Amino acid sequence: MGETRCIGRSASPGVAIGTLFVLETAIAGRRGTGTPEQEDTALGDAIEVAKAELAELIGQAEGEAADILSFQVAMLEDEELAAPARAEIAGGVAADLAWRNALDAQIADYAASDDEYFRARVSDLADIRDRVLQHLSGAQVQALPGGAVIAAEDITPSRFLSHDWKSGGAIVLSKGSPSSHVAMLARARHVPMVVGVDFDTAKLKPGAPAIVDGAAGVIILDPEAESHQAARTRVADDKRLAAEAQHFLKRPAVTGDGSAVAIYINVASPDELAEIDPAICDGIGLVRTELLFHGHHGLPDEEQQHGAYKRILDWAAGRPVIVRTLDAGGDKPIPGLTIEESNPFLGLRGLRLSLKRPEVFRTQLRALCRAAVAGELKIMLPMVTVPAELAEARAHLDAVVVELAQAGIAHRRPPLGIMVEVPSVAVTPERFAADFFSIGSNDLTQYVMAAARDLNSVAHLADTGNPAVLALITRVAAQGAARGIEVSLCGDAASDPALVPHLLRCGLRKLSAAPAAVGRVKAAIAGIDLRS
Amino acid sequence: MGETRCIGRSASPGVAIGTLFVLETAIAGRRGTGTPEQEDTALGDAIEVAKAELAELIGQAEGEAADILSFQVAMLEDEELAAPARAEIAGGVAADLAWRNALDAQIADYAASDDEYFRARVSDLADIRDRVLQHLSGAQVQALPGGAVIAAEDITPSRFLSHDWKSGGAIVLSKGSPSSHVAMLARARHVPMVVGVDFDTAKLKPGAPAIVDGAAGVIILDPEAESHQAARTRVADDKRLAAEAQHFLKRPAVTGDGSAVAIYINVASPDELAEIDPAICDGIGLVRTELLFHGHHGLPDEEQQHGAYKRILDWAAGRPVIVRTLDAGGDKPIPGLTIEESNPFLGLRGLRLSLKRPEVFRTQLRALCRAAVAGELKIMLPMVTVPAELAEARAHLDAVVVELAQAGIAHRRPPLGIMVEVPSVAVTPERFAADFFSIGSNDLTQYVMAAARDLNSVAHLADTGNPAVLALITRVAAQGAARGIEVSLCGDAASDPALVPHLLRCGLRKLSAAPAAVGRVKAAIAGIDLRS
Repeated sequence: MGETRCIGRSASPGVAIGTLFVLETAIAGRRGTGTPEQEDTALGDAIEVAKAELAELIGQAEGEAADILSFQVAMLEDEELAAPARAEIAGGVAADLAWRNALDAQIADYAASDDEYFRARVSDLADIRDRVLQHLSGAQVQALPGGAVIAAEDITPSRFLSHDWKSGGAIVLSKGSPSSHVAMLARARHVPMVVGVDFDTAKLKPGAPAIVDGAAGVIILDPEAESHQAARTRVADDKRLAAEAQHFLKRPAVTGDGSAVAIYINVASPDELAEIDPAICDGIGLVRTELLFHGHHGLPDEEQQHGAYKRILDWAAGRPVIVRTLDAGGDKPIPGLTIEESNPFLGLRGLRLSLKRPEVFRTQLRALCRAAVAGELKIMLPMVTVPAELAEARAHLDAVVVELAQAGIAHRRPPLGIMVEVPSVAVTPERFAADFFSIGSNDLTQYVMAAARDLNSVAHLADTGNPAVLALITRVAAQGAARGIEVSLCGDAASDPALVPHLLRCGLRKLSAAPAAVGRVKAAIAGIDLRS
Repeated sequence: MGETRCIGRSASPGVAIGTLFVLETAIAGRRGTGTPEQEDTALGDAIEVAKAELAELIGQAEGEAADILSFQVAMLEDEELAAPARAEIAGGVAADLAWRNALDAQIADYAASDDEYFRARVSDLADIRDRVLQHLSGAQVQALPGGAVIAAEDITPSRFLSHDWKSGGAIVLSKGSPSSHVAMLARARHVPMVVGVDFDTAKLKPGAPAIVDGAAGVIILDPEAESHQAARTRVADDKRLAAEAQHFLKRPAVTGDGSAVAIYINVASPDELAEIDPAICDGIGLVRTELLFHGHHGLPDEEQQHGAYKRILDWAAGRPVIVRTLDAGGDKPIPGLTIEESNPFLGLRGLRLSLKRPEVFRTQLRALCRAAVAGELKIMLPMVTVPAELAEARAHLDAVVVELAQAGIAHRRPPLGIMVEVPSVAVTPERFAADFFSIGSNDLTQYVMAAARDLNSVAHLADTGNPAVLALITRVAAQGAARGIEVSLCGDAASDPALVPHLLRCGLRKLSAAPAAVGRVKAAIAGIDLRS
């Protein structure tokens, strides 16, 4: 009997060897129905217990994990979430059924969204639904065995966080999304994960031997000896690479022939920094500010933003910090700000949107100028396409600086740079009078290859290693050198050890990588000889 | 009292001066209700009369106009269109109400589509609805005065066609779409048209003086003397340019300093050629084949395609004809072939789709190889991104040629060229072993500028005259010259007299324009001195 291969979509890289554990996602039935008053009280109690449990998990979690759990608590605290359930209960429906109906309707809405962001939130809603249902039913939670390959339709973030992954294992899901909270957690904890796998979990054999290749998105069930051996070699290689990465993590990055490379990190919120040792990097090459705008209480005001930026500068302790102004739109909708468009990646996004909403843009610029007194802050504009946009943005910055000076508020005018991600800029960088360039390789690649970075149908084309993309990167690096301005690269390519040699050969000497990739990238750089 | 300016979206260029005529779109009420049998008969009769009227209009129309009306007849012949209305009538609803409900539901579906193609068909459905309602009610059609500026929510194609536009006039709509049938007709007949205008037709003053600038998408109501004078000058200029265009129409295109420029035309169906004199052009630079795939009976078979291609080659009488293989996807969905994606312009489209559906691709290649014996046919591949795709397409062509030879079917192997529209090709054209290049300036521009060509929000960025786009065009022209292969350009830029000088300065000497633009383009070329 041969092995069976199932194919899915990569959500977290790495190879795992283990036995299959099929996770039941159905929740057990519940006791008989009480009066509407009793049912309403039962629901209220179950929600309170769920909140208390999540609060306890938050106490043990850090960074991203704590954020995700806080997001769930915030949803449970929103009265509107339970309102349809309470209305049904008043009409005589049992608490568990009413809660399930209310949450399932919400989940269906999110799942049907065109938007990956909302689809990715489905598992948070399911998590809340099941936690409350479990308390209503009094059923026990199925324990997950250590080191197993967990197969399920989907898995909730809190379920992931309550398991101990130290003894290995992997996650394979027939549904799920690479941008879900669970996938983010899996990547941070190096748990291999594959989503959208073409299997029926009901037909899987629990206890069967299984191999998961997270990067390739492949699961091998009942593997043959050869596959087993290959996987063991990969696991050993990964371990060796991880040890090597650990060795290089806090050292300066230097190529085999002695060229220094500055390594920055990309971050999305100040909370993330709590877990990161500043010694691993030369600064922050990209602060994404979109998360700040995803709160439950509308857009953040100047004080909230100033507080967030200042925390980041304090962490950097004098190292440079490049903050990107709001890059909403594309695959990052923000209610009340972005518009729905037929091709959002080619629409009103990034700086284009900021220039249409100057009051939002100026609030961010004010907060940035004020925070700039606390360190080496630089401002970076996303999606610049023509020089007039840069000029318009600079005029807003000028005006904000004048305003702050007139009001006697402490501030500093930061350097103003641009992302190079629209091909028009990469083809004619000499037309853009920016103080620095940072190449956004993800967007640059998707435009140069006309292949969206989130569509499976064209994933084979969206390749930053393509000679056309590398030729444009080379052109931008050369222009930066000619003008004596900094050029860095802050896309996923900077976190990919296979692409880093190409980037250095394009002339780049500043890369901004995912924090988890810094060790591996430095190890890869040490192995490069630019003379050969 | 000053003038009022209303802004919309350009649907057809040109300047018109006239008086405002507000078109009522509501249909008058109808006589009392009969029995379900009488109502069903009344609806059937009204549909038959509508079909007969449309058939008569078709007899007077040509080319595109005849196509549009035939499309409406085909819809009326589809039993499924009337089925919901007949069901309601059987349940006791009056014929007019039942028909209106059925069509309005259909229209709402089309209008809500993400897809510009379906949204553009809304006016055809409204046209059919109103024509049948009018026969049910026995009401008279409002006559349109000659030379007026017709303001309405929307206007139907048959309404447009039943009016005599010889004495001038224009159309301004609060709804509508630049890709609607009416807009196509307006462009073909040089009637200025603006859609999506920010006015409320109910509040307009019929009889007020009005100026329409179709290209700018502006309507001036109660214009001041200065605006009036400016418009008169524009109208006179347009007349002069039209006369000039007529003068140059059938002469070879030559710049002021004596460089010859080959002018080809772009066509979408053999029917279109009936109205065009082959003497105006040096050949056909682009045959779009998508229309062939939009029939009501599934995808066209080899015989249907062969017939269509042969008619085009016969028209060309030995002049070169470049046929583009199916460029479905993007903004051109085809049921049963394309898939729905979040960013269709960056998704599975053009050659990418053909390579996924080799049976559809090979049928087209077979039909093209067979038609090639009738003239100078060349095959062009859309959306090529990497050299491997061209190699794969060539392997399919090789296989098809072998098949035809083995079966003893008359055929010829045409040259195989590619569209240069994905930036990866324009940046590194030397990597693509094509027999010729044709620059698709619309798509190239939207990718280089990361600005969708159908989104108003970024229309200011989607500019083929941008230095980055022109730099890439120059690079492709130079590569063609170095290799001795033909390079033409077949996007909208080739029809724009303002852009043509730039294109020639990029090194291009072959342009493929809209048939209606040939005279203007040749006139513009005559005015260019490439030495200065």
